[in-house]
Amino acid sequence: MTEFTLDCFLESGNAYKVALMLELSGADWAPRRVAFFSGQTRSPEFRSMNVMGEVPVLTHHTPHGDVVLSQSGAILDYLSREIDRFGPANEDERREILRWLLWDNHKLTSYVATYRFMSLFQKKSDDPVTQFFHARAVGAWKVLDAHLKGRDFIVSGHPTIADLSICGYLFWPDQIGMDLTTYPNIAAWLDRIAALPGYKRPEDLMPSGKDPATATA
Amino acid sequence: MTEFTLDCFLESGNAYKVALMLELSGADWAPRRVAFFSGQTRSPEFRSMNVMGEVPVLTHHTPHGDVVLSQSGAILDYLSREIDRFGPANEDERREILRWLLWDNHKLTSYVATYRFMSLFQKKSDDPVTQFFHARAVGAWKVLDAHLKGRDFIVSGHPTIADLSICGYLFWPDQIGMDLTTYPNIAAWLDRIAALPGYKRPEDLMPSGKDPATATA
Repeated sequence: MTEFTLDCFLESGNAYKVALMLELSGADWAPRRVAFFSGQTRSPEFRSMNVMGEVPVLTHHTPHGDVVLSQSGAILDYLSREIDRFGPANEDERREILRWLLWDNHKLTSYVATYRFMSLFQKKSDDPVTQFFHARAVGAWKVLDAHLKGRDFIVSGHPTIADLSICGYLFWPDQIGMDLTTYPNIAAWLDRIAALPGYKRPEDLMPSGKDPATATA
Repeated sequence: MTEFTLDCFLESGNAYKVALMLELSGADWAPRRVAFFSGQTRSPEFRSMNVMGEVPVLTHHTPHGDVVLSQSGAILDYLSREIDRFGPANEDERREILRWLLWDNHKLTSYVATYRFMSLFQKKSDDPVTQFFHARAVGAWKVLDAHLKGRDFIVSGHPTIADLSICGYLFWPDQIGMDLTTYPNIAAWLDRIAALPGYKRPEDLMPSGKDPATATA
């Protein structure tokens, strides 16, 4: 058995945040497919593991028993301590990492992921709700691009879990309606992440969340 | 000068999270009115202090200079360490607090606050976007009510910053379209928070974000 098991599916940018952390850190891990599109995350069995009914869920198999974690930001924080990679160099950085993890969850991923789900998977691109989420995403991208001006990474000169969290959905610009030429600082920052040793795209890290019978959809 | 200055306005549940923490902790603090409704948080001056363009912003006036913080969850974490109140009792609780802070930002406040803003302040109760956010809020309340079954507080037998974060908008049930009789575990938990020594409502802690000329609106 590997040291870590990640309940995930490749279509989830939130799961990708954790998968990328594990891969870039050289951790001993394996993905476990969650059939999201047929409702597995909302089943009683899954909720008994995570009342929030969401992926990712990370299980750390330790000599003292399994540690089960959810919420990508909390998992990244845990891993940065356990693996001692992509964490803060000091207390100021620790606070900045937390600040940007929260911003990602509240103001970036919450909008981008919902936009992508409704437009790409529900085929509701023209729905006013979908358009509302896209407009909010654009607002978040402007904040991010302004922040990255003159910076190599979100918090410091070195990449941290704040970068791995915030980039989660941004390697799919076509799927999220994002023209990267409008956000040159974001584009350059994504290139820096993609150049990290061991970088892989979601498709190369996780299985699909679609049932095999519908996997070609 | 007080030890802490909180940029805030009473209509912001996110600012209330921090104001409540400061008040319950007996901190030496003062609110500073932000004219949200005339656009102050999106002004260049405000963004130079917080690129995210949001309240709350907390300034901690220390002998070594001012520490300026944003994102309510990051501020609560900072205060729990500085004041040594409402923090975790151990590492397991620390992780759980972080998990629920992230969930609040991603799945609860992000929906509830937007619903309230659109219905209460923009008067768009019937807009499909407003209704979408309300449906998402209902989903979050169900998760929270299920989690609180058999628990006194979110993470442990004692209140933590996770409670102070998650309750931020829930003391306005009428404004967020929430029938508390549907969520008995949430209702009992809110009563426990309101019974904490020093508890005050938002209206008793912060100034309005409306310009004086329109403050009666």
